[in-house]
Amino acid sequence: MAGKPLMELRWDPILREWVLISNIRRLRPWQPSGFCPFCPGNPETGYGWRALILENRYPMLMESPPDPSTHWFYSTAKSVGRCYVVVEMPEHGIDDISDLPVDQIEYVLKMIIDKVREESGRDYAHYFLWFRNKGREIGVSLTHPHSQIYVLPFIPSRVEREIGSAKEYFDSKGRCLFCDVLNAEVRDGIRVIYSNEHWVSFMPFYSHWPFEIHIYPRRHVQLVTDLSNDEVHSLAQILKVSLCGLTHVFSSKSMPYILVMHRGSSRVDLQACK
Amino acid sequence: MAGKPLMELRWDPILREWVLISNIRRLRPWQPSGFCPFCPGNPETGYGWRALILENRYPMLMESPPDPSTHWFYSTAKSVGRCYVVVEMPEHGIDDISDLPVDQIEYVLKMIIDKVREESGRDYAHYFLWFRNKGREIGVSLTHPHSQIYVLPFIPSRVEREIGSAKEYFDSKGRCLFCDVLNAEVRDGIRVIYSNEHWVSFMPFYSHWPFEIHIYPRRHVQLVTDLSNDEVHSLAQILKVSLCGLTHVFSSKSMPYILVMHRGSSRVDLQACK
Repeated sequence: MAGKPLMELRWDPILREWVLISNIRRLRPWQPSGFCPFCPGNPETGYGWRALILENRYPMLMESPPDPSTHWFYSTAKSVGRCYVVVEMPEHGIDDISDLPVDQIEYVLKMIIDKVREESGRDYAHYFLWFRNKGREIGVSLTHPHSQIYVLPFIPSRVEREIGSAKEYFDSKGRCLFCDVLNAEVRDGIRVIYSNEHWVSFMPFYSHWPFEIHIYPRRHVQLVTDLSNDEVHSLAQILKVSLCGLTHVFSSKSMPYILVMHRGSSRVDLQACK
Repeated sequence: MAGKPLMELRWDPILREWVLISNIRRLRPWQPSGFCPFCPGNPETGYGWRALILENRYPMLMESPPDPSTHWFYSTAKSVGRCYVVVEMPEHGIDDISDLPVDQIEYVLKMIIDKVREESGRDYAHYFLWFRNKGREIGVSLTHPHSQIYVLPFIPSRVEREIGSAKEYFDSKGRCLFCDVLNAEVRDGIRVIYSNEHWVSFMPFYSHWPFEIHIYPRRHVQLVTDLSNDEVHSLAQILKVSLCGLTHVFSSKSMPYILVMHRGSSRVDLQACK
């Protein structure tokens, strides 16, 4: 592609949120049919691993991004941050992370948590977004099972809304909104999909979509880095059961999905959740 | 389908917005191949029309909805409102509204505006959402060109955010946010797709998506019912040009899209926009 590389944050003054702009992702190559950059034995991957975290070669955010353009009316900022790819298994042909044994899912979760812990001290790190897109319908271009971590220089606007709701709820009721929602779902029971010692998986009363699944910790905890080893093991187990259920809803096709881990911010004093 | 009909609004306490819940839409029949309920000569449509507004037979909102369920923790409300289908032309096989002559698009817009005016006095009418989904990828089940009007008993949360931004902008700068965005886009010029006497079509500096098109009136106006006849005619013209451009971006396939008309609320005192 000709033209100047462009990579910056642009402020939407109407929805009041940052938009990630990059033309670097247009450089992503069309891979030869049958070639997978995430399989073992490639230059980036090598051999002898159970799971890998790689830097995204075509990232939306970089540790040392170019200076943003300047505009006389609109606001811009540097696309500072990190984009990682989590290659969840060496095997290429497995449909979903939920097809792996619980101990492999736990291994992947621990790698992600270690990466979050490692990045937590960085100046640019305001939010850690672990997300998993499954299926071509969602826009997945590489089918080798993988997920992504974005280390963001801002809190996503949706998470800000969640934090704002939790604060307002705490101010008016003196209780944690998320704990109360969990309590309501457990007491009703009818929308609970699965639960174990540390987690509950449910389709909330106020679901926006069919098959919308929320997984909550039983313990009041804000950060994935605060989970105990037992809680991480239980999370792997409930993820496996919940995603197996979701991907098998239709017998004709494995269900595409978007999975996103929500967390508090390490920078905001969440009185509401203490 | 067995079971009780269910139709209510449920409050999402975490995103603080209403969710429309209904199992009535599951009753929508699979139509015999080749049958279209929007073509002329059917029981609902008859003959001798250029465009039609019909009540949606499987609505999310009704003038006299059933009482909502009650819940000990969550909030619910009646699904009071209206859902209309706008059949935009008698011809079944035309790809898009932009393939029609400008005077037919103008005719459709005037029907929509008349319907909004007619509904404006209703107690339940807090917002009028005209939207147009095009393409099976968006979830369109009937291909006969049509759009929809939802008369909503609340302001959608996204529109509330827009109104909130406009208020805050006016409080701090004493100017209208939307007028300033329009001015910036016109002055830059490079992202303007098309403009006529009354409207400007552009891809904003802060676009969230490729091919995201915004169409703004040049005059500071909040409600579609406040548009002059000339402005409605010009809107039909710029809609045609902008949507023709969008649907023909790829030669291999007509582009699917979602079109939504945003407006102020007739119930909220928009100081910011006066």
